[in-house]
Amino acid sequence: MAVPDISVLKRIKAFAFDVDGVMTDGGILCDLEGQLYRTFDAKDGFAVRMATMNGYPVAVITGGRSGSIRERFRSCGIKEDDVYLGSRDKIADFNDFCRKYSLKPEEIMYFGDDLPDIETIVAAGIGICPSDAVQDVKDSADWVSDYPGGKGCIRDGFERTMKAAGRWVFDACDYKKRF
Amino acid sequence: MAVPDISVLKRIKAFAFDVDGVMTDGGILCDLEGQLYRTFDAKDGFAVRMATMNGYPVAVITGGRSGSIRERFRSCGIKEDDVYLGSRDKIADFNDFCRKYSLKPEEIMYFGDDLPDIETIVAAGIGICPSDAVQDVKDSADWVSDYPGGKGCIRDGFERTMKAAGRWVFDACDYKKRF
Amino acid sequence: MAVPDISVLKRIKAFAFDVDGVMTDGGILCDLEGQLYRTFDAKDGFAVRMATMNGYPVAVITGGRSGSIRERFRSCGIKEDDVYLGSRDKIADFNDFCRKYSLKPEEIMYFGDDLPDIETIVAAGIGICPSDAVQDVKDSADWVSDYPGGKGCIRDGFERTMKAAGRWVFDACDYKKRF
Amino acid sequence: MAVPDISVLKRIKAFAFDVDGVMTDGGILCDLEGQLYRTFDAKDGFAVRMATMNGYPVAVITGGRSGSIRERFRSCGIKEDDVYLGSRDKIADFNDFCRKYSLKPEEIMYFGDDLPDIETIVAAGIGICPSDAVQDVKDSADWVSDYPGGKGCIRDGFERTMKAAGRWVFDACDYKKRF
Repeated sequence: MAVPDISVLKRIKAFAFDVDGVMTDGGILCDLEGQLYRTFDAKDGFAVRMATMNGYPVAVITGGRSGSIRERFRSCGIKEDDVYLGSRDKIADFNDFCRKYSLKPEEIMYFGDDLPDIETIVAAGIGICPSDAVQDVKDSADWVSDYPGGKGCIRDGFERTMKAAGRWVFDACDYKKRF
Repeated sequence: MAVPDISVLKRIKAFAFDVDGVMTDGGILCDLEGQLYRTFDAKDGFAVRMATMNGYPVAVITGGRSGSIRERFRSCGIKEDDVYLGSRDKIADFNDFCRKYSLKPEEIMYFGDDLPDIETIVAAGIGICPSDAVQDVKDSADWVSDYPGGKGCIRDGFERTMKAAGRWVFDACDYKKRF
Repeated sequence: MAVPDISVLKRIKAFAFDVDGVMTDGGILCDLEGQLYRTFDAKDGFAVRMATMNGYPVAVITGGRSGSIRERFRSCGIKEDDVYLGSRDKIADFNDFCRKYSLKPEEIMYFGDDLPDIETIVAAGIGICPSDAVQDVKDSADWVSDYPGGKGCIRDGFERTMKAAGRWVFDACDYKKRF
Repeated sequence: MAVPDISVLKRIKAFAFDVDGVMTDGGILCDLEGQLYRTFDAKDGFAVRMATMNGYPVAVITGGRSGSIRERFRSCGIKEDDVYLGSRDKIADFNDFCRKYSLKPEEIMYFGDDLPDIETIVAAGIGICPSDAVQDVKDSADWVSDYPGGKGCIRDGFERTMKAAGRWVFDACDYKKRF
C-alpha cells in the first residue's frame, strides 16, 4: 500500500489515468443545460507536461465525455488519440493503449479511484489510487497515495516514477518550446 | 446515530434525498443573472447509477429549482417524474413518491441536512444525514454519516444498503448499455 | 470572544454583514472579462430566509459590486434597498441602515472578516467574525464564530440570536408562501 | 524556513508572485472550449490593494495566459505592464521587473510554488512559498508560509512585510478614491 520499491518504479515506461476523483477532486460543476465543467490542479498538470516532454506515453481513460477534458489534456501534451472519453470498459481501452505503444501492462502505472477502475488497477504494473478512493479500490491498489484526487495524487505518482528513472529534470528552454 | 443494523438496511427498497448540502457540499455558485450552478461528486453519482441500474426507485426532493439539478439526475438514471424541484413541503412529496411505487415510508432511506428535512427524516425507515448537517437534524436522524454533504454521504448510504442486500455488483456490460 | 451571553443576544433586532469571506469562503471566480462569480452556502442562506420571514431587517454591506450578489440576496428576502454594493465606507452605510429602521447600533449584529469591517464590528451591538478572519479583526470582535466564512458563520450567528429570541421556528406553510 | 527576521523584511521594496498555487489554490476550472477560470481570495486581494495603494511595485509572473488573470490584477491596482502572462522563463521576467524599477533582486519578495519558480525564489531577497508548495520548492525557499496557496499565503507575506515597514495602515478615504 505504501510507495513501491524503487526497482518497481524503474520498470514503469508509461502512465494511464482516470479523470474524475483522480485528476480532479471528483467535483463536477453542472450548468443549466447539463454541461459539465471540471477543476484541474496546476501542479498535477505540470507533472503530466514533464512526462510528455520526456517522451512517456500518457493515456487518459475516463467515463466522462465533456469537451473540457479533451482541451485540458491537449494543453498537457497528451495525444488526442490517447484520450479515451466515454470509456465504459476501461480494461479494453487500457489494452488498446498497450498495443499502440507495444507496452506490457506491467510497464504502465494506472491511477483510478472507483469500481470501474479496479480491473485495470490490478492489471497494471503499479495500480495507484488517491487517498480518498473508495475502500474497495484501496484494497486492490499496489499503492495508496498520501494525496487525494485533484490535489497531488497524479503529481506524486509521476514525480516519484520519473525521479526513480532519473528523468525528473526541468529544462525551461525545452518547456518554452513545447508549451 | 451509527450505521444501522444490517437487518434494518435490508428493509430498504428505495432512496430519496435532498440536494443542497447532501448531494452537494451546500455551495451554490451564482452568476450575474442569479442563475445557480452546483457541483456534484463523481463517486456519489456512481452510487446513484448503481441503484437505478439495479431497479431501485430513487427520488430527489429539493427546494432548488435550477435546471442544473434536473440534468444531473437524468444522467444518473433517475426518472424525470421522481425529481421534485421547488419542493416547499417535503413530506408531501415524499408521500407522493411512496404512493407511486406502493412503498411504505419505512422501506425508504431519506437523506437530508436542514430543518425542512426533519419531518421526512423522522418518517423514513432510515433517516440519514451528512456529518456536516445542522445539529437539529443530527439529533433527529437514525444515522449520521461519517461523510459530509457532496463528498461521500450519498455513496455511504447507498453502498451499505446495496451491499446488505447483495446488490452492490458492478457489471461493466450493463453499465455500458445504460449510461 | 466566545458566544455572547443570552441576555446580550436578546437585544439584537437586526443583522448586517459583509459578503466576501463571511457569506462566502472568500473565493471569487473570475471569468475572462473580469466578471466575478461567488459561491454561497445553502444552510447560511436558509438562516437569512428565516430572519427575513420573521421580520428582522437584514443588510448586506460589501465592497463587491457584482450582480451575483444582488440576485442572491433578493432570493433570501433581503430588500434591494438594504443591499449596499460597492461600499467603501462601511460604517456610513451601517449608520444609514440604522436610521432607516430607527435602530441603535447596539441592537444590530454585524459580521465582518477584514480591515474595512473593524470600525463597524466595534460599533455594532455584537461584532462577530468567522473563524478564518484576519487576526486584527479577531482581536476586535465580540465573538469569533467556530465556523469559517461561507460555511456556517452566518448560520451560527443568526440561529443563536433567533433561538435566544424564541423566533427560530420553521413554518413550512409560511416558507412556501414567501420563497 | 520560518518568518524572516524583521530586519530582513524591512529591506523589501517590491513584490512579485506566481499565480496558480500561490494566488490561487492551484485549481483551474476548464470550460468546454478549454477556456480557464480561476478563483482568487478576497483577503489576498485586499493585501495586494494595500501594497499598490502604498506605492509598492507589484509584479505577476505566471505561465498562465488567461484573460481572467489580467482582469483580476487590474482590479488590484497592478500595472498592466507588470503582469507577465505566458512566462516560460520566470527569472528573465523577474530581472526585467527589477530593471524597470531600478530595484535589486534582494529588495524583492517573490512567491512561487513549483519547479519553474525555484530559480527566482533563490534570486529574490526573500523567496516565500505556500504551505502546500512542492517539496523541492520548500527546500529552496527562505520562508514557508503557514498558509496554503489561494488562502492566505500572499496576505501573510504582504502584511508582515508592510507591518515591518510601518506601512500597513488602512485609510478608507484613500481606498475609496483608488478602488
